[in-house]
Amino acid sequence: MAGVPETGLGHLRVTLTDAAYIGPGRADLLEGIAQTGSISAAGKRMGMSYKRAWSLVQALNDGFGAPLVEASRGGAAQGGAHLTELGTDVLARYRAMQEKTAEAIVADVAALRARIAVISDGK
Amino acid sequence: MAGVPETGLGHLRVTLTDAAYIGPGRADLLEGIAQTGSISAAGKRMGMSYKRAWSLVQALNDGFGAPLVEASRGGAAQGGAHLTELGTDVLARYRAMQEKTAEAIVADVAALRARIAVISDGK
Repeated sequence: MAGVPETGLGHLRVTLTDAAYIGPGRADLLEGIAQTGSISAAGKRMGMSYKRAWSLVQALNDGFGAPLVEASRGGAAQGGAHLTELGTDVLARYRAMQEKTAEAIVADVAALRARIAVISDGK
Repeated sequence: MAGVPETGLGHLRVTLTDAAYIGPGRADLLEGIAQTGSISAAGKRMGMSYKRAWSLVQALNDGFGAPLVEASRGGAAQGGAHLTELGTDVLARYRAMQEKTAEAIVADVAALRARIAVISDGK
């Protein structure tokens, strides 16, 4: 079951407005920027070109109407970047929503997995 | 905000095993089959070719290891189909998980939407 989340939560997208949403890819990119201090490095970790990572950051900033990511002071030349307070809040809340969702679905996931196991054992 | 769910829940995929998952598209197709008694009609409602709808049904049946959808007695010639007890359970549990998730994220969605509204008002 490689790639199967233990919680059963495969993908959660939260749609805030017609322009602002957050899903696992955007969250991972924000987290990578927070950890590496670089859009380029964060994108590379995800197998993403700098152009693609940058355009995702632009889409996030435009969609929320204010920057979630901005260039670090003196860091623009090296592509240095960091999360704004808004970006940090969006990321933290998304991770919290993933955890809350995993808890909310735990009983149904267990029940469905038990059924699949019974089917599988019967073969 | 057309197409923006009031709950903020944009997409929920539940991954049970490496072969069995359920998301909004699969759930809508199962629901359509339950309501119309036909894979073809259910697919058409979603703008899907019969071939595509059928291959989705096959993927669901294969992935869970037992049919979620089967041909109705005497209905195969017309493409008549219905949900099995397993299919009905998977659909009901997925809808329940969507509701539970929406409840679990409601406070974070409201908080983020409030921030976006403040940003938007300031422009």
